[in-house]
Amino acid sequence: MGPGPSGIHPSVLAAMAAPTVGHLDPYFLRVMDEVQSMLRHVFQTTNPMTMAVSGTGSAGMEACVVNLVEPGDRMIVGVNGVFGGRMADVAGRAGAIVTTLERPFGEVFSPQEVADAVKRVSPKVVGIVHAETSTGARQPLEEIAGIVHEAGALLLVDCVTSLAGIPVEIDRLGIDAAYSGSQKCLSCPPGLAPVTFGPRALEAMDRRRTKVASWYLDIGLLRNYWGQNRAYHHTAPINMNYALHQALRLVVEEGLPARFARHALHHAALRAGLEAMGIRYSVAADNCLPMLNSVLIPDGADDAAVRTQLLNQFGIEIGGGLGPMKGKTWRIGLMGETARMSHVLLFLAALEQCLRHQRVHLAPGAAVAAANQYYLAH
Amino acid sequence: MGPGPSGIHPSVLAAMAAPTVGHLDPYFLRVMDEVQSMLRHVFQTTNPMTMAVSGTGSAGMEACVVNLVEPGDRMIVGVNGVFGGRMADVAGRAGAIVTTLERPFGEVFSPQEVADAVKRVSPKVVGIVHAETSTGARQPLEEIAGIVHEAGALLLVDCVTSLAGIPVEIDRLGIDAAYSGSQKCLSCPPGLAPVTFGPRALEAMDRRRTKVASWYLDIGLLRNYWGQNRAYHHTAPINMNYALHQALRLVVEEGLPARFARHALHHAALRAGLEAMGIRYSVAADNCLPMLNSVLIPDGADDAAVRTQLLNQFGIEIGGGLGPMKGKTWRIGLMGETARMSHVLLFLAALEQCLRHQRVHLAPGAAVAAANQYYLAH
Repeated sequence: MGPGPSGIHPSVLAAMAAPTVGHLDPYFLRVMDEVQSMLRHVFQTTNPMTMAVSGTGSAGMEACVVNLVEPGDRMIVGVNGVFGGRMADVAGRAGAIVTTLERPFGEVFSPQEVADAVKRVSPKVVGIVHAETSTGARQPLEEIAGIVHEAGALLLVDCVTSLAGIPVEIDRLGIDAAYSGSQKCLSCPPGLAPVTFGPRALEAMDRRRTKVASWYLDIGLLRNYWGQNRAYHHTAPINMNYALHQALRLVVEEGLPARFARHALHHAALRAGLEAMGIRYSVAADNCLPMLNSVLIPDGADDAAVRTQLLNQFGIEIGGGLGPMKGKTWRIGLMGETARMSHVLLFLAALEQCLRHQRVHLAPGAAVAAANQYYLAH
Repeated sequence: MGPGPSGIHPSVLAAMAAPTVGHLDPYFLRVMDEVQSMLRHVFQTTNPMTMAVSGTGSAGMEACVVNLVEPGDRMIVGVNGVFGGRMADVAGRAGAIVTTLERPFGEVFSPQEVADAVKRVSPKVVGIVHAETSTGARQPLEEIAGIVHEAGALLLVDCVTSLAGIPVEIDRLGIDAAYSGSQKCLSCPPGLAPVTFGPRALEAMDRRRTKVASWYLDIGLLRNYWGQNRAYHHTAPINMNYALHQALRLVVEEGLPARFARHALHHAALRAGLEAMGIRYSVAADNCLPMLNSVLIPDGADDAAVRTQLLNQFGIEIGGGLGPMKGKTWRIGLMGETARMSHVLLFLAALEQCLRHQRVHLAPGAAVAAANQYYLAH
């Protein structure tokens, strides 16, 4: 129940342990085709260039940024958490002239703010984080692509934590490029980064004057391996792709609407329980991510001691705060397989015990009662 | 029996399917420590900065190059195969002024050639491939580090295919940085790239004037995660590290000398069999890699048809030639778990059948007889 990796279905672990074939084996090429097709479904896109980068989510971020910007290009990055900050760092290393649009941790950007910045900077790319894993804030994306496109720029969206947990509508929203990670709401072990590139993004890459700084992440080369040519690029992580394939099958089997509803349900029950014991969220209710619950550590509770007891006594991992939120928040994940009633109820019961260990008495029994009441009513 | 991925021991696949814990879980931190310690053993080094990059072998190459060179630095790369060519490409993208030292595919460099080039170019880094997976050639490394160091440069060595199959003596030979891949003689699925950096390499990184172009592969940041600080960098591929941990345990259990002897034995038996049926190696005997047997496709044999029949009828993968060797050579891997007597004998028997299918008759039975004779005599 941390901010990822999430729990893994046994069938995904079993798939990952299947015998390793070669990276150009006809069987593996079929696995790749099916991974791509299912990723398009999850990203809600028809983009042919949708695939899994052979690295974790941050490699997906880097793949998007280094392919879209060239040295000297202007890029705007929305920074309202650690991952926006990371995107700005990556863009700067790629030689972009970066303008950050800043908001305190936990807040989100309004379309007007983006419009003003785009008008002022006239960037090639605007990067924004859909689901800030460091704060639990959900960035509304309606209108943003229109604003960005009107200025002739490309919209890049970080969907690491949102993909398969809340709608990520690449085509309807007009998002030009996006990246995610396998270990959040897709409930696959970490090691792969799904990415998708729309036609505008590919055209921008075709117009590049310079080689992409990274050979490993050069989408022009990767298109020849994941596309029809099947030209050898690098040796793909075969077994990780088996795992992602099976994780995606489970997503497709459940159906996206049911999966989104499940994340919303367990988030609401968890929230009912936490609030009943007097714990407050660090993000405004309107912007709360269902899969990443960031709450303020109650007065008198020792951050590390509670997390250690949860882990050692109950086998439950939750995350501490990142950056300026260190020691101030806990981040409770309900991602993919982890978003289950048993997890919510056990976590609330266990948290109560850990807090009482520290003589923090918060209406004993109230949390579980409130969560149960929510479940019975919905 | 391709040029990697190699066969995987069942216990490695089982380890990979263990439940995924968090990337800062105390259990995982211990796994990381043990992976580092066993990698030092395999690299024959005491370098503290020895770890597994979260990507495949090419990510390891890129990690080494982008951390060692800054834009404008001079680098010499020995190009006698596809992977030397790739290193030169990666270095150019990193902004290095690259001088290639070239040799036809299958040949190797003499210390004198390296000395002349170093004298002429006065580079910051010299990159050379120990085991060229595209040609099967083994580059002797004695004397090279001395020559490179005398000129004040750093020696970077590609050990992707050699590590754990032939000696890779980082400390004794004075190699400053090296990278490998998990899927060759370590017999782990692809997805991780072991790297090691010696004190001179770390000092050069500490003296950088510019940020490393890649955030994902920035060794300065990775040192804080793999070192004592355990500062969160990216979410490591947890299950891949379980697999590497178990694969390394098997290497340690077997012992390096025994493992090297096993690779040498099965290579010699395979060679005896192939030569008995009239097939010739594409590399001079002195420079042959035991784990990657590159042979000339016999006259009259259809490259793709033979490889397809081997795969479909016998479940045996071998590799085709890369670059200028395409259609001219086969690459037969005997890496890690694949270097076994049963594999050698079945392959020779199966190859004979595939060739006879195409009316290429090469002394029927001679290959298996010669290999068996070699085994009985050794």
